[in-house]
Amino acid sequence: MAQLVADRRDVDFVLHEQLNVEQLSQFAKFEEFNKKTVDMVVSEARNLAVKELLPCLKEADEEGCLFNNGKVTVPKAFHRAYELFCQGEWIAMCDDPDWGGQGMPATVALAANNYFNGANYPFMLHNILSHGAGKLVECFGTDKQKELFLEKMYTGVWGGSMLLTEPEAGSDVGALTTKAVPNGDGTYSITGNKIFISSGENDLVENIIHPVLARIEGAPAGTAGISLFLVPKFWINDDGSQGDFNDVICTGIEEKMGIHGSPTCSMALGGKDQCRGTLLGQENKGMSAMFVMMNEARLHVGMQGFACASASYLNALNYARERVQGAALTAPKGSPGVPIIQHPDIRRILLTMKSHSEGMRSILFYVGLMEDMIKVTEDDEDKARYQGIIDVLVPVAKGYITDRAFEMCSQGIQVFGGYGFTKEYPQEQLLRDCKITQIYEGTNGIQAMDLLGRKLGLNKGKAFTDLLAEVQKTIDTAKETKELKPLADMVDATVVKLMETAQFLGAVMGAKNIAAAFVQAHPFLDVTGDTLMAWMLLWRAVIASQKLSEKPKKKDISFYEGQLKSAQFFIHSVLPVARGKMEVIMAGDTAALDISEEAFGSK
Amino acid sequence: MAQLVADRRDVDFVLHEQLNVEQLSQFAKFEEFNKKTVDMVVSEARNLAVKELLPCLKEADEEGCLFNNGKVTVPKAFHRAYELFCQGEWIAMCDDPDWGGQGMPATVALAANNYFNGANYPFMLHNILSHGAGKLVECFGTDKQKELFLEKMYTGVWGGSMLLTEPEAGSDVGALTTKAVPNGDGTYSITGNKIFISSGENDLVENIIHPVLARIEGAPAGTAGISLFLVPKFWINDDGSQGDFNDVICTGIEEKMGIHGSPTCSMALGGKDQCRGTLLGQENKGMSAMFVMMNEARLHVGMQGFACASASYLNALNYARERVQGAALTAPKGSPGVPIIQHPDIRRILLTMKSHSEGMRSILFYVGLMEDMIKVTEDDEDKARYQGIIDVLVPVAKGYITDRAFEMCSQGIQVFGGYGFTKEYPQEQLLRDCKITQIYEGTNGIQAMDLLGRKLGLNKGKAFTDLLAEVQKTIDTAKETKELKPLADMVDATVVKLMETAQFLGAVMGAKNIAAAFVQAHPFLDVTGDTLMAWMLLWRAVIASQKLSEKPKKKDISFYEGQLKSAQFFIHSVLPVARGKMEVIMAGDTAALDISEEAFGSK
Repeated sequence: MAQLVADRRDVDFVLHEQLNVEQLSQFAKFEEFNKKTVDMVVSEARNLAVKELLPCLKEADEEGCLFNNGKVTVPKAFHRAYELFCQGEWIAMCDDPDWGGQGMPATVALAANNYFNGANYPFMLHNILSHGAGKLVECFGTDKQKELFLEKMYTGVWGGSMLLTEPEAGSDVGALTTKAVPNGDGTYSITGNKIFISSGENDLVENIIHPVLARIEGAPAGTAGISLFLVPKFWINDDGSQGDFNDVICTGIEEKMGIHGSPTCSMALGGKDQCRGTLLGQENKGMSAMFVMMNEARLHVGMQGFACASASYLNALNYARERVQGAALTAPKGSPGVPIIQHPDIRRILLTMKSHSEGMRSILFYVGLMEDMIKVTEDDEDKARYQGIIDVLVPVAKGYITDRAFEMCSQGIQVFGGYGFTKEYPQEQLLRDCKITQIYEGTNGIQAMDLLGRKLGLNKGKAFTDLLAEVQKTIDTAKETKELKPLADMVDATVVKLMETAQFLGAVMGAKNIAAAFVQAHPFLDVTGDTLMAWMLLWRAVIASQKLSEKPKKKDISFYEGQLKSAQFFIHSVLPVARGKMEVIMAGDTAALDISEEAFGSK
Repeated sequence: MAQLVADRRDVDFVLHEQLNVEQLSQFAKFEEFNKKTVDMVVSEARNLAVKELLPCLKEADEEGCLFNNGKVTVPKAFHRAYELFCQGEWIAMCDDPDWGGQGMPATVALAANNYFNGANYPFMLHNILSHGAGKLVECFGTDKQKELFLEKMYTGVWGGSMLLTEPEAGSDVGALTTKAVPNGDGTYSITGNKIFISSGENDLVENIIHPVLARIEGAPAGTAGISLFLVPKFWINDDGSQGDFNDVICTGIEEKMGIHGSPTCSMALGGKDQCRGTLLGQENKGMSAMFVMMNEARLHVGMQGFACASASYLNALNYARERVQGAALTAPKGSPGVPIIQHPDIRRILLTMKSHSEGMRSILFYVGLMEDMIKVTEDDEDKARYQGIIDVLVPVAKGYITDRAFEMCSQGIQVFGGYGFTKEYPQEQLLRDCKITQIYEGTNGIQAMDLLGRKLGLNKGKAFTDLLAEVQKTIDTAKETKELKPLADMVDATVVKLMETAQFLGAVMGAKNIAAAFVQAHPFLDVTGDTLMAWMLLWRAVIASQKLSEKPKKKDISFYEGQLKSAQFFIHSVLPVARGKMEVIMAGDTAALDISEEAFGSK
């Protein structure tokens, strides 16, 4: 099979050689997931992705979703894809088999998701939303709620969504005005309007279960007064039978730049005062329930962005190997054209895309491994350490990765020249689809504030330093190998400077210059991400160097050499720039704060 | 009038206060263009842009162009816009009034084009192509060709295009196979297929005049055997009357990511052996004719990209001033929401967009001034110096500016959050339209090679050092002002390092390590552009500082203060990063060259 969507050799490398995912099978929870099973799962995911999801990517983009009188139809081809996806039990890969899940390690599920999302992430949004809504039921539902809803959501019989955003409450969730009034029978009457609701209405499923953020009458203003409700499109009776339509109406869908296969719905709840919901979790604890889900959702978005970049890279690579244009730079005049992969600027772009794709893959899968380790670890201190590392990595996995993924998708168009701008190739769609990953589930500006404002100081800074301690381990190991020592030294110097930068910003915040710190939040996210990417690429190089010394199979030699080149390129080309950015942060310029509103431009 | 498309105050600032465009009116050629006339021209352009072109931007994007049996219809609203545009005599703003031009300074025309392109650049492509084709007739045509074609092209009665690219000859023009056979009567029979032809066919005009690159039978291979022909859609008889259809058929149009109002045509010439053309210029000199046009065309593309960024900035600014979301960072809990322009991260994005827009505007208008100076200068040495500066600036104006413009359009979406991804606001279209500017008229990879391979060593390096001498003048002036000295010192240090970087790359090329030099071509374009932007912003700050000391009108104070902030922000935030990039170049990493093709990824 041609390498499409993701490079299988690299996926396997991260799973088995970098993260040693087989280690998890020593624990009862994951005992079935030996190497053979893991490989089989990945192969099946790849098959479904390449043979079924990828072929309807373009078609779905062109067809889009249709809204007609409250009904939404998704692209026709999605129906077959959805049926196969549910048959394969892919919606709840990591969840409890008692509820229809597959009980898989998160690390392995990420590998499967790499293929699924790279092949057709607008399609995947439907499944991710169903799963996320189901997870809320699993985490916060009563036994009865679980019994009524969970298995049908995890197996895709019913869909799910997440009704959070309102026209005046986007980044500022606390401003929401959707209202819940107790009916006295355990249910609440819900009224309000929501926007930007992915999969809020669609024709893939017979019922859609909406978790809805709303304010119970009389509850406090702001986030402290928000509760979470479960609001099905069709009411579900206590015996599990389907009741009446629950007055949750889709009033329209957005026309968007991309993800045309995913309907972005405006929803009206209780327009006829007939919308009921049940409380999910505790009163006024809706926001903390959301926060529990946020890591999963943000990691998913990072995966979506990365998967676009990964697919764009392989498309660009395949094209560059075949497209003949121009003689080699140093060839005598009149020499015949060569594949453009031989031109230096194209090689620079390709190695930029390759090294970024690889680093992103390692960061994302590593977060998965941390999640799995929490599940199998009994030591509370270790659990807390893993959780802290995840918490620090999430804004990087969402914000930094999607920022870079968008840039990579743009580079992936450049390799195709004029063809990249046409709809003949997938490159332009990947860019359009990728763009929203920088925005939803908290804009990347919000991610940057999360990293600086919450995560840097988490557990008194221990979470951040725990992560850097892991980085240091890799550096120390790399220093032992002669050929890697210069690279390790450069990463080391960068980590030292990153810590300085973090301390600088910590001091600025400590001095209550909050704005002066936060104006540097996004640059700080940038440099943190760059440093962690270098870590991952150095780690990969350590393994590759070791494997090369063990005389690997011939076909593996070029792969391992490619790992060394990725690390060399990224560390030499990106880290000096990142250090320049750290200097910028520490110079602490406040022009952006000091400039008056008028001075931005006349009205 | 609300500030849309471009900030009028800033346009005026560059024209009058930075470049002193009135100085041109002391020369006979431009004597009519005193300040009053210039302002009137800009006002008229702005009116037409904002009142007529901007309102059909979205409509044209949605409607697109239609292809049906060889005919192409453009968006309906373009017909009225085109009529008004021709009535205003905007197609040939700078050209000889004898041929229907307005004889305007290029600097002033750029200001008008800032508005036109920012309002609706897909529409503008039609006019730019007509003008470019006309310019070829003016520069290389016989008296007869000029008499037959020129005025009708410059006044928009007839359209124009440029038939260059072929499926196997994109960046490598020399590979083209379109053939010309002399008929013995002064005409040639042309046969071949061309692709990616903007405005190759459309229903705006009654005839389309195609300059076509083709190879005369028996001519040498490569670029040395390419000639330029004038091939009208309908033959024009010697008396100027219209003859038969000339067998130039549009066989289809591309489906594209953006610029939907501009048809990108595939063209078949001589499918029925009935296509004739006349030689334009000398045999086998087609490429040098192209090169003469290239500066104009590339400058136009830079303008297109910049105009998207400029419009995206003003949209983002207007939105940020009105969109209320979230309390101020340091406000007590429960405080009401504030316009997002008060949030530090939004301010950082806006000042990034502002400073980049301003620097780009100055670079582009400055190239225009250099063109004008050539026209009014009698001293040959000065003329050569101006031309050298233009030649160095063109790859920056095209490559660097469109690279940054695309990034700015992306930032301009972020300010809108989820709304930025919808078609409710123009931000997403500006991004999609902007993308092609990085590709056509020579990809930005080609621009980077042009800067490094041709322009850096032009006139034995004198062109590049002449430009830096202009930069140095600004630095020296800025150093005389106490408040600007620190900024001037930083720009100075950057220029010194840029020269080192240039010398380093020169030495690498001198040692015949061509690939090792060219793998750094794009990074070198980046840092050259950053340095020149800093120059322009410092220059602006010098003027602003002086004006502030002269107690300006109240409404001007914030504008001038905004100039100081732009310079401060860019020099503090971008230059240290640029210096990091220069270090990368001088470290001379060759991983991208050394990596084997296999190591990029398995097949």
